Amino acid sequence: MTPDLTTPGAPVPAEQQEREAAITREVLESFDGCTDPRLREIMRSLVHHLHDFVREVRLTEQEWNAGIEFLTRTGHITDERRQEFILLSDVLGASMQTVAVNNAAHGDATEATVFGPFFVENSPEIDLGGDLAFGAPGQPCWVEGTVTDTTGKPVSGARIEVWEADEDGFYDTQYGDDRISARAHLFTDADGRYRFWGLTPTPYAIPHDGPVGGLLAATGRSPMRASHLHFMVSAPALRTLVTHIFVSGDELLGSDAVFGVKESLVKDFQVQPPGTPAPDGRDLSDRSWSKVRFDIVLAPEGS
Amino acid sequence: MTPDLTTPGAPVPAEQQEREAAITREVLESFDGCTDPRLREIMRSLVHHLHDFVREVRLTEQEWNAGIEFLTRTGHITDERRQEFILLSDVLGASMQTVAVNNAAHGDATEATVFGPFFVENSPEIDLGGDLAFGAPGQPCWVEGTVTDTTGKPVSGARIEVWEADEDGFYDTQYGDDRISARAHLFTDADGRYRFWGLTPTPYAIPHDGPVGGLLAATGRSPMRASHLHFMVSAPALRTLVTHIFVSGDELLGSDAVFGVKESLVKDFQVQPPGTPAPDGRDLSDRSWSKVRFDIVLAPEGS
Repeated sequence: MTPDLTTPGAPVPAEQQEREAAITREVLESFDGCTDPRLREIMRSLVHHLHDFVREVRLTEQEWNAGIEFLTRTGHITDERRQEFILLSDVLGASMQTVAVNNAAHGDATEATVFGPFFVENSPEIDLGGDLAFGAPGQPCWVEGTVTDTTGKPVSGARIEVWEADEDGFYDTQYGDDRISARAHLFTDADGRYRFWGLTPTPYAIPHDGPVGGLLAATGRSPMRASHLHFMVSAPALRTLVTHIFVSGDELLGSDAVFGVKESLVKDFQVQPPGTPAPDGRDLSDRSWSKVRFDIVLAPEGS
Repeated sequence: MTPDLTTPGAPVPAEQQEREAAITREVLESFDGCTDPRLREIMRSLVHHLHDFVREVRLTEQEWNAGIEFLTRTGHITDERRQEFILLSDVLGASMQTVAVNNAAHGDATEATVFGPFFVENSPEIDLGGDLAFGAPGQPCWVEGTVTDTTGKPVSGARIEVWEADEDGFYDTQYGDDRISARAHLFTDADGRYRFWGLTPTPYAIPHDGPVGGLLAATGRSPMRASHLHFMVSAPALRTLVTHIFVSGDELLGSDAVFGVKESLVKDFQVQPPGTPAPDGRDLSDRSWSKVRFDIVLAPEGS
């Protein structure tokens, strides 16, 4: 799969290779007594690839120690508000690979992307046309669209969860208090339509003052995410969709820190000059605002 | 390497395979700007195998969540006295694989095994013939031997660190207070000889009240370790040896929870009936004791 992977320096003598392979065999066999066949399959595959990794790079004991220490710091910085292991999975692309494995393309269904670490249960409900900002700073953004199934049938009562960072790049969970803002849920109307006021997404850095930020810096990678607005859309008998929409023209579309960008999810956020009347007559006085359309197509459940 | 690895249920269509491979390629390329070639090599190999694992088992989003949650709990139970990530590496055999990669056989040099999570810096020094128990309960055990290099030349002044569990299966770091016991360091004499009193090793369970214990239980594996006594031996210009000696006849030799047993490290601990005179004249009154010989051969540094 990776033909240009750096080959280790010296060839490993056959006898040594056998000694190393014997350890892997012994560990794989230790799962013979596992009565849960799925767990057994997962553990065997994990061990197989973990050992291959150690052998392939000829991991030194110092590097093994650095790995233990990295994981320890990742665990210690993780709390109810910060999930550094999800960040780690995201920046290694393991999250997007899992999304890909679980969201095989289905007709014209909307593509999925990473969940990220900032979703919170029990968001406030807003009415159609309501404002999810709850005081978070940013340019108002009118978002509207429909939810349909892959036959084009409107889905009424679909639950739409939306969450996003404010214009300074922070989610409410990063404010350090208990504020809830820039997140909400709403439901589609009888015709499968939805509309709400959010904030025009802006680029931001994923939290990079911890071990994952250190890893990105050490490897010459940027912590910046392309501007986006999170969606999670669910309805009975349809596949729950976890996705984002991205902002057309954003310079970061090609270098998203978590590999979440898909072309089909890049949308035109049309910025309106101050004074342009809002679709719902809202008084925005002298502020500019933007509008975007996102029509969502849900795949059948189990597809 | 693992021909009998369970194959996933349904074949993956070529188009879907390509979508998944594209994600891996994108993540591998994100390390192109890494100026540290070794770090780049490690990260690319890690990503390559991590993604292969996700694809191979068709990891579900629920399973991914369970993985994040497992790592989080592993991080949170880890503190200055408990290192659950080392335990995890140990029970997955990643520690022994790393030991194998870094300790290629060299002539008759003594074989290495896992370091484990119970070593502590700054152990007390004991004289030759001293007792490292410091009050820890257990049958006294006289340990003696030599340290030589691979040409048979005695190594004087070699530093020997020794640590072990007490007869109840606990290391001092597990007592919950600040006691230091059943660990010490000493130095070989001018002829490369050493001798000390320790405790006859007994089998014990690795800490299994945490996530790693849960993993072992769920996969039908035992948390028991074969009885052993830890050694770390270092001397200038020689390869530092981290190893154990195991007890001949121990029923757990074939099912050690961390895959640490090597035949060459299994030693004859000869139990002496009460009243048998001790080698150094120590008064053991009516207690039984044991004795074992362990001659240590250190490989050249860098070998």
